[in-house]
Amino acid sequence: MEKSSTDEAMKVGRWMEEGGFARLLGIEVVAARPGWCQVEMAVTDNHLNSVHITHGGATFALADFAFGLASNARGETAVGLTTTMSYPAASKRGDRLVAEAFEETRSKQTGNYRVEVRRQSDSVLVGLFSGTVFIRGDAVSQWME
Amino acid sequence: MEKSSTDEAMKVGRWMEEGGFARLLGIEVVAARPGWCQVEMAVTDNHLNSVHITHGGATFALADFAFGLASNARGETAVGLTTTMSYPAASKRGDRLVAEAFEETRSKQTGNYRVEVRRQSDSVLVGLFSGTVFIRGDAVSQWME
Amino acid sequence: MEKSSTDEAMKVGRWMEEGGFARLLGIEVVAARPGWCQVEMAVTDNHLNSVHITHGGATFALADFAFGLASNARGETAVGLTTTMSYPAASKRGDRLVAEAFEETRSKQTGNYRVEVRRQSDSVLVGLFSGTVFIRGDAVSQWME
Amino acid sequence: MEKSSTDEAMKVGRWMEEGGFARLLGIEVVAARPGWCQVEMAVTDNHLNSVHITHGGATFALADFAFGLASNARGETAVGLTTTMSYPAASKRGDRLVAEAFEETRSKQTGNYRVEVRRQSDSVLVGLFSGTVFIRGDAVSQWME
Repeated sequence: MEKSSTDEAMKVGRWMEEGGFARLLGIEVVAARPGWCQVEMAVTDNHLNSVHITHGGATFALADFAFGLASNARGETAVGLTTTMSYPAASKRGDRLVAEAFEETRSKQTGNYRVEVRRQSDSVLVGLFSGTVFIRGDAVSQWME
Repeated sequence: MEKSSTDEAMKVGRWMEEGGFARLLGIEVVAARPGWCQVEMAVTDNHLNSVHITHGGATFALADFAFGLASNARGETAVGLTTTMSYPAASKRGDRLVAEAFEETRSKQTGNYRVEVRRQSDSVLVGLFSGTVFIRGDAVSQWME
Repeated sequence: MEKSSTDEAMKVGRWMEEGGFARLLGIEVVAARPGWCQVEMAVTDNHLNSVHITHGGATFALADFAFGLASNARGETAVGLTTTMSYPAASKRGDRLVAEAFEETRSKQTGNYRVEVRRQSDSVLVGLFSGTVFIRGDAVSQWME
Repeated sequence: MEKSSTDEAMKVGRWMEEGGFARLLGIEVVAARPGWCQVEMAVTDNHLNSVHITHGGATFALADFAFGLASNARGETAVGLTTTMSYPAASKRGDRLVAEAFEETRSKQTGNYRVEVRRQSDSVLVGLFSGTVFIRGDAVSQWME
């Protein structure tokens, strides 16, 4: 991986971090390369459901953000088409969640990504996500002004 | 549908509305019956991604909340196992999203639910969600204190 | 729906019926229109698993065939990207399975389809399928020689 | 992994191989351990669709069989609830497909499995499958006569 593409990927990450929903949830980009990234989120009262564990929607949002970053980090705009998620375990207030996104396949017009969300303290898998993107012809950079 | 079961379902809805994540996103329960519900959310800056449309995670969160309510509205605790979502169209600030959840199948231990998320203004489908639950033996009411 | 488009859709269906896998399984097209179709399959010993119920792969194959026909019945080639299936109930030798495919959304380049597979005798849902296609620019008819 | 559990897993595999659908498609178990297996299938005219590539339902059937074996190879009956599949590339007559199933998570009552289907000749991924099971209390062996 050459340095320039990593820089470009992180630039996309910083820009995505500034979205209103990412800020509301406190999503932070740790590292990004084309086709891969790691992002984190601290679980607070704001992320819980009525039984005081992390809402599935909050875990999903972190995974979906990682999916978006990994798939757009090559600089071509990729649009999410379908996503699937399962929840092997729970997390709670005080946990820090780490999502890592991997590119499984990528052709000219579509791509598949996998995201694993784990509790940082014990590495237990709390979310398993997979997503498919449609790759449009336009550059991500044109949206970044 | 007898009145008592509708009352019970709405009671579950009100309790779920008080979760931190539901409050953070502004999710509101409109109506609920065992196996069915309608919930809404107004899209604000807080729900947007970096290209100023609703973040997939926010649309998912609304759908997932509806899934949770419809599947727990019978009074037995149902735990989400797997969910799938696709995004046929987008929404933006000022849109009001309406999610309607339907029970497709329900056996003793599992159930399948479908959720449609639409823009209220023009009824365009912006999210299509399906989810599978595992039904535990305990009562939802015991969690509601 | 004008007659010509129904004729065209049935022509695609007849052509798909001749594929080796469709013939191996005994899949029959009952009716087709752009975006919709109904197909059937009789369950024989050949479709069973080791516990003598219909193999999930056989039920899936019928649903996937219906998905392919409904999405290609407009005459533009549509390629399946992602599919999801759940199995609310079982079927066995002697059952006749009926799959009905519906178009949920269709844009210029992608589409979502839903397929319900039921036992003909009692209409019980034995398979619930959803699929996403990528729509290429070429015509189905050019493949039909 | 102790030898006895591998023997038991292979015994389940041999029994599953004798199902009508597995025989119809020519599915062969190469190796199995609790939570893992490798199975293969040679693509013939019988597995093709109308454009002469492997039917999605045939690739799915192989993946689903592997999912069933890996999840039942511990000796407790596991029932498939939901499956998701995507098709990153195609295969054709003469290809040999290899499916490898991995256990991603397993709790007392549910489990998630991932299956990768590749062309043996060049290891290209032609199917990416994930599935969720519900684990019943009964033993697989009681079904095996």
